[in-house]
Amino acid sequence: MKRILLRIAYDGTDYAGWQIQKNAVTVEGVLTEALRDLLKEKIELIGASRTDAGVHALGNVAVFDTETRIPPEKIAIAVNQRLPDSIRVQSSEEVTKNFHPRYCDSIKTYEYTILNTSIAIPTESRYSYHVYRNLDVIAMRKAAEVLVGTHDFSAFCSAGSQVKSKVRTIIKVEINEIPLASFFRNYPQRKIIIRVSGTGFLYNMVRIIAGTLVEAGEGRRSIETVREAVEKGERNLAGPTAPPQGLMLIGIQYKKQADMMEK
Amino acid sequence: MKRILLRIAYDGTDYAGWQIQKNAVTVEGVLTEALRDLLKEKIELIGASRTDAGVHALGNVAVFDTETRIPPEKIAIAVNQRLPDSIRVQSSEEVTKNFHPRYCDSIKTYEYTILNTSIAIPTESRYSYHVYRNLDVIAMRKAAEVLVGTHDFSAFCSAGSQVKSKVRTIIKVEINEIPLASFFRNYPQRKIIIRVSGTGFLYNMVRIIAGTLVEAGEGRRSIETVREAVEKGERNLAGPTAPPQGLMLIGIQYKKQADMMEK
Repeated sequence: MKRILLRIAYDGTDYAGWQIQKNAVTVEGVLTEALRDLLKEKIELIGASRTDAGVHALGNVAVFDTETRIPPEKIAIAVNQRLPDSIRVQSSEEVTKNFHPRYCDSIKTYEYTILNTSIAIPTESRYSYHVYRNLDVIAMRKAAEVLVGTHDFSAFCSAGSQVKSKVRTIIKVEINEIPLASFFRNYPQRKIIIRVSGTGFLYNMVRIIAGTLVEAGEGRRSIETVREAVEKGERNLAGPTAPPQGLMLIGIQYKKQADMMEK
Repeated sequence: MKRILLRIAYDGTDYAGWQIQKNAVTVEGVLTEALRDLLKEKIELIGASRTDAGVHALGNVAVFDTETRIPPEKIAIAVNQRLPDSIRVQSSEEVTKNFHPRYCDSIKTYEYTILNTSIAIPTESRYSYHVYRNLDVIAMRKAAEVLVGTHDFSAFCSAGSQVKSKVRTIIKVEINEIPLASFFRNYPQRKIIIRVSGTGFLYNMVRIIAGTLVEAGEGRRSIETVREAVEKGERNLAGPTAPPQGLMLIGIQYKKQADMMEK
């Protein structure tokens, strides 16, 4: 028996999220079927991140156990032939039998993309949240600084979460601007990408962070109110949950597996 | 009677190209319907570029004549309410009555996006051409230099074009790399964007340039063979026509209208 780790990219637009469901098409469901079809075994996936409906991934992680004789690194190519274009396994490799993608220490990196243009751009709308008001990126960066570190992020967690502790560590928040071609000199046309790395995230946490930082960028929220939200831990003190299509799980780095990942 | 110029962005994935057709959904067809519905007049559009099926635009241009009393710059917002999300009019403005988007001198800028990664990435595949072989960008840039200037581009024009002269001027070709987040240090994961500006383009010209430069980047074609294709003007001496989804019409700049465009 071998344990295989997959890194999976997907376009979440047409999926009801990662987690397998009976009456909906999900990434885990489609991937499980493709693996069963390939390996002729009753494969059960253990996923690292249960991304929501409409959320994308460049490198979500899942493991499964198999008796197959296919070399571990060849599984990615073989399973891709049985998957729709909207899901691509980026790599496959053998890991130790006790490796668990949720319980082993890791750093997760997400990007939330805001399209900050006067009019929406069709070729961007599938993967971004359109905000037409001109955002103050400096104010967004200052507000983001308040979130870095180890805090109780109760205010940044949607109802329905069953976790006991809401203490999490955000290692880094970067906010980058990418200018877009434009014919309007009086209005900045750009993407604003919020890149967040941390050791763990609560339900909808990155989308609530994005919603809060957009309010800061619009001048509708001060840094003090962000600090207050963190300190008091009340959901209504943080901003709204930004829409799913702007969110992408970029990748997950495992501490113990660091040497194996970064060949 | 006023002549109105529109700048139009669209996701070409689900359209049979720009040009109006009886039995197919086209960008011009959908936009014409929306304008007729808004203005209650028999609007006829004159488009600048008849992009092919699957090709995208950030700033295609079209004009039409109208008697409407809606202020010119408000037409964009009003018509967007009658358009699907896949088409957004970016701006509307009045131009002189003799302004013609194809006959007035202009500089057109296109981008062709190549996804140069070992495995396809679902969130990139709608807007790029996936090439898994590692491309030599230096070789691509050298091959591109041969194309800059005024040449007979017969070798870079698909059959079916009815234009008499195939002499065109390419002002600039830039090839830029955008690195992508990656867990594979031994393989570059990146987008390669070919940005071409010129005073006019033949049928499929940018896609044939892209196909030729990819061959140069793969090491399957020398700079001399690119030069030979230009000199001899035979279609079979240039590379294949790269697929449509990688192509985007970025914008069109009109010389006479320069002051009006760049407010």
